[in-house]
Amino acid sequence: MSMTCVPSVTENWILTAQCPSRLGTVDVVTRYLRERNCYVTEHQSFDDRASQQFFIRVEFRPEGDEALDIASFEAGFAPRASEFGMTFELIPPGRLTPVVIMVSKADHCLNDLLYRYRTGQLPITIKAVVSNHPDLAPLAEWHGLDYHHLPITAETKPEQEQAVWRIVEECGAELVILARYMQVLSSEMCERLSGRAINIHHSLLPGFKGAKPYHQAFEKGVKLVGATAHYINDDLDEGPIISQGVEPVSHADSADDLVARGRDIECLTLARAVSLHVQRRVFLNGARTVVFQR
Amino acid sequence: MSMTCVPSVTENWILTAQCPSRLGTVDVVTRYLRERNCYVTEHQSFDDRASQQFFIRVEFRPEGDEALDIASFEAGFAPRASEFGMTFELIPPGRLTPVVIMVSKADHCLNDLLYRYRTGQLPITIKAVVSNHPDLAPLAEWHGLDYHHLPITAETKPEQEQAVWRIVEECGAELVILARYMQVLSSEMCERLSGRAINIHHSLLPGFKGAKPYHQAFEKGVKLVGATAHYINDDLDEGPIISQGVEPVSHADSADDLVARGRDIECLTLARAVSLHVQRRVFLNGARTVVFQR
Amino acid sequence: MSMTCVPSVTENWILTAQCPSRLGTVDVVTRYLRERNCYVTEHQSFDDRASQQFFIRVEFRPEGDEALDIASFEAGFAPRASEFGMTFELIPPGRLTPVVIMVSKADHCLNDLLYRYRTGQLPITIKAVVSNHPDLAPLAEWHGLDYHHLPITAETKPEQEQAVWRIVEECGAELVILARYMQVLSSEMCERLSGRAINIHHSLLPGFKGAKPYHQAFEKGVKLVGATAHYINDDLDEGPIISQGVEPVSHADSADDLVARGRDIECLTLARAVSLHVQRRVFLNGARTVVFQR
Amino acid sequence: MSMTCVPSVTENWILTAQCPSRLGTVDVVTRYLRERNCYVTEHQSFDDRASQQFFIRVEFRPEGDEALDIASFEAGFAPRASEFGMTFELIPPGRLTPVVIMVSKADHCLNDLLYRYRTGQLPITIKAVVSNHPDLAPLAEWHGLDYHHLPITAETKPEQEQAVWRIVEECGAELVILARYMQVLSSEMCERLSGRAINIHHSLLPGFKGAKPYHQAFEKGVKLVGATAHYINDDLDEGPIISQGVEPVSHADSADDLVARGRDIECLTLARAVSLHVQRRVFLNGARTVVFQR
Repeated sequence: MSMTCVPSVTENWILTAQCPSRLGTVDVVTRYLRERNCYVTEHQSFDDRASQQFFIRVEFRPEGDEALDIASFEAGFAPRASEFGMTFELIPPGRLTPVVIMVSKADHCLNDLLYRYRTGQLPITIKAVVSNHPDLAPLAEWHGLDYHHLPITAETKPEQEQAVWRIVEECGAELVILARYMQVLSSEMCERLSGRAINIHHSLLPGFKGAKPYHQAFEKGVKLVGATAHYINDDLDEGPIISQGVEPVSHADSADDLVARGRDIECLTLARAVSLHVQRRVFLNGARTVVFQR
Repeated sequence: MSMTCVPSVTENWILTAQCPSRLGTVDVVTRYLRERNCYVTEHQSFDDRASQQFFIRVEFRPEGDEALDIASFEAGFAPRASEFGMTFELIPPGRLTPVVIMVSKADHCLNDLLYRYRTGQLPITIKAVVSNHPDLAPLAEWHGLDYHHLPITAETKPEQEQAVWRIVEECGAELVILARYMQVLSSEMCERLSGRAINIHHSLLPGFKGAKPYHQAFEKGVKLVGATAHYINDDLDEGPIISQGVEPVSHADSADDLVARGRDIECLTLARAVSLHVQRRVFLNGARTVVFQR
Repeated sequence: MSMTCVPSVTENWILTAQCPSRLGTVDVVTRYLRERNCYVTEHQSFDDRASQQFFIRVEFRPEGDEALDIASFEAGFAPRASEFGMTFELIPPGRLTPVVIMVSKADHCLNDLLYRYRTGQLPITIKAVVSNHPDLAPLAEWHGLDYHHLPITAETKPEQEQAVWRIVEECGAELVILARYMQVLSSEMCERLSGRAINIHHSLLPGFKGAKPYHQAFEKGVKLVGATAHYINDDLDEGPIISQGVEPVSHADSADDLVARGRDIECLTLARAVSLHVQRRVFLNGARTVVFQR
Repeated sequence: MSMTCVPSVTENWILTAQCPSRLGTVDVVTRYLRERNCYVTEHQSFDDRASQQFFIRVEFRPEGDEALDIASFEAGFAPRASEFGMTFELIPPGRLTPVVIMVSKADHCLNDLLYRYRTGQLPITIKAVVSNHPDLAPLAEWHGLDYHHLPITAETKPEQEQAVWRIVEECGAELVILARYMQVLSSEMCERLSGRAINIHHSLLPGFKGAKPYHQAFEKGVKLVGATAHYINDDLDEGPIISQGVEPVSHADSADDLVARGRDIECLTLARAVSLHVQRRVFLNGARTVVFQR
């Protein structure tokens, strides 16, 4: 399977929409784009018979690359969308999604994301790094990023989460990346971040939920280990899956070896999920996702 | 990467089209489908900036699953398509593509295709098996298929190809599958079969063209061997690539071991290409292909 | 990961052995081989610190390819092995492992094994095919194999298993392959077949144990499906794992599509496990296995 | 295939040896280890019938973890090895291989190696980073490493290579890693670095040798791109291959997208080759390599 990030798209506009299945869902989008003289360069849509939901993602550019006025575009489309009960989002070229990254002590996923960020491989702007430990401050700071050390205990959890939430709100983050944060979020926090917080779990879910999945995998004697990037929800390690990666292992690998081997696949799987999300290729579909791969 | 066949689609209609890039290419298709009360279940389109060509594939069903009259549908769309210089094809649900399979002595790809055919995994109907050797007749016949033994020598090549062509014509085959046929087709034959003959070459093209690619791979000491399914053209092992598969090998593998190891990946890569082709997911784009993966 | 069968080894002798870890375990084997003028072509050994067990597999040929007398070889080695509490097995070149294959109605794994068998890709000799349904008799019979239809109900299970066991015993099968047999074996049967019955389960264990794993996988919205070949034990879908394979899937795949997609990976994973087993590359190590890959 | 680094081995001694094939090659090694009361934890050997060469790698620890005197061990083994024309190398636990890394402007492979180095995932000690450009100095320096900027032109190439060689000599580097150095080394330099310089080429060799392989791959329309880590030799992109990695791509990927997608696989493939090399798992075997995977 592909494990690389989907290359960043910067030159086109992106329109995504979602609504209950009905005759005319594609046409209402494509006809409007035509009327606005928008040139469609990539179009993917899918109608899920099981959930009776329709999903569409279109990349386009205004004919002749002329300017496109967002407000006018949206105002023109809103009434048509509303007839279909359709929610939509318009993303201009070069738009960087503001994100907050949450970490604990393990630095591999953070290091990987920061490298991709620094070299322009991910269309994001990192607003802050938040951690319950001070360890990764130097790494964040070398990249010129704010690092918030917010320790957590059973008692201080509500306050800590409140502080985290304030940071997310204040910096306008649209996505929270749990890059091995290792803390279970409260139901309230999960609710607030629904659909906009991506976690990396170091197993092929639903196998090996919970703590120390590599040690569980070692005990079980599996021949493949993996990682799963998913939206968080209130049910631990159960949110809708975005991407999964896998890596063969052998009898000679100890549990610690599995931990070491798994790092690369965790980094790649998380980076891929973030890349898909910020390019608006992922849609929530109940407990599942629709992912328009490139 | 995915190596399985794309599951057969039988319940939907498929419309594919291709034309030079221009404003309105998507809309001309989707608006017409809307006007005909067609419910779009899957839509993929792509505009290739390099070749300035537009490609679209839509799956749909008539609203309420009412009947759809092909002649009337096509007659209605033809003038609109013609404005765009657009060629199109309409495939009804359950349509089986008629194919001819050509083989030599190696039976693994044939065996694999026949199994998938027999179990309904490929929406094809096999009209004939043609070979320059008699060896695989029992296998074909067990499946109730006509087997044409057409030996070939340098001198008889024109006549043999003429005989092959006659079979293809007479049985109305729309696709010829070279399942390890091991003969180079003449320019004339390549021309006639352009865009509708798929070959499996047992290497990751463009590496190891020509004869005995596994032996070449052994000499080179590669750590991966692979297979490439491609449309044939007049340039040996150079036609547009549809799918490629790969398999790790080790120093302990002899050239013969590589031959043995490669069989699975050849079968899978060819079956995948055939599956993509007959589901109209592959488009010629100059020397390259556009493939709408599921 | 590699998914092909390990190429068959026919020209060398194979010696495998296993014992508790102790100083001298390698030397006791290699010194004896030297004294018998045996030329070692491949040697893999592993000492598992966790289980305190030693495993060794050696391929060799008598110097100058002279004859080797099995009885004399074994008699000479036995006292040395016994000092280490070592069990060992000697396999002559070209030895075919006698097997019984058990199936239900699904034919893909059987078809795949029979093809490999027929073309000499697996060093096995199939003694019988046993099924609780009559459906696959023609396939077995085309390959000239005995097919035993032994229906099973809750009431007749003990008798049916007794009949199966008699077949296994009478034909001298050393390995039983559950190629989608779909019946849970009794504890007694599991006990009898311990270490010599390989099952294919159509999920990445320990995820999706039990019935309808692809439907479970669909509900969960996973992005990868897989298959697991393992030795059976008394705990359903829990025996020591030999090989696992994986395949990416998408939101567009229905549960039935997953079933279809999974067939290839089931075939490859099972064939690989059988290939590794009969080449004596797999060792039981408690609830895990040691697998000397090529 | 596995793409991760082989986990570092630090607690065992490693003995590797190589010689012409002959009866007794395994025994001469294992018997000596037994006599020295060495406990073998992992043993792999292979006899290549084609090249008539024998290769062995053993991990062991002195019984009871007592001290082992290198000089005495080597002195004891040398005469026995010499009878077989055997070269050997003994590596104590925790030994870090001194390396020099050469780069040009692209930083992804360097960044990846430095991360693994910094977090102890590779048993190496980086003595210097050498480049023909100044660009990557800050990255090296943040890791506390010496950075040598040695510009190169057609005229100054001999002097530049002389300067590079001096650095390699003076810091005692046993391995030179060409982490996208992008310069062709002179024959003399290749000779000097034979068997101890690893290059990463951004294609699946032998496909797409030379400049701009991703652009070649785009033109050809391949469905897989890859990377190859190999020992350098005097024939450009032709040295013995250590590891190869691969990644699926699509029609929607431009040549620049392929460059972006390829970065991950280049990093992983190079890191894996370095990891295998410094753990003494790779042997030169003419134009090929023997690699004892874990």
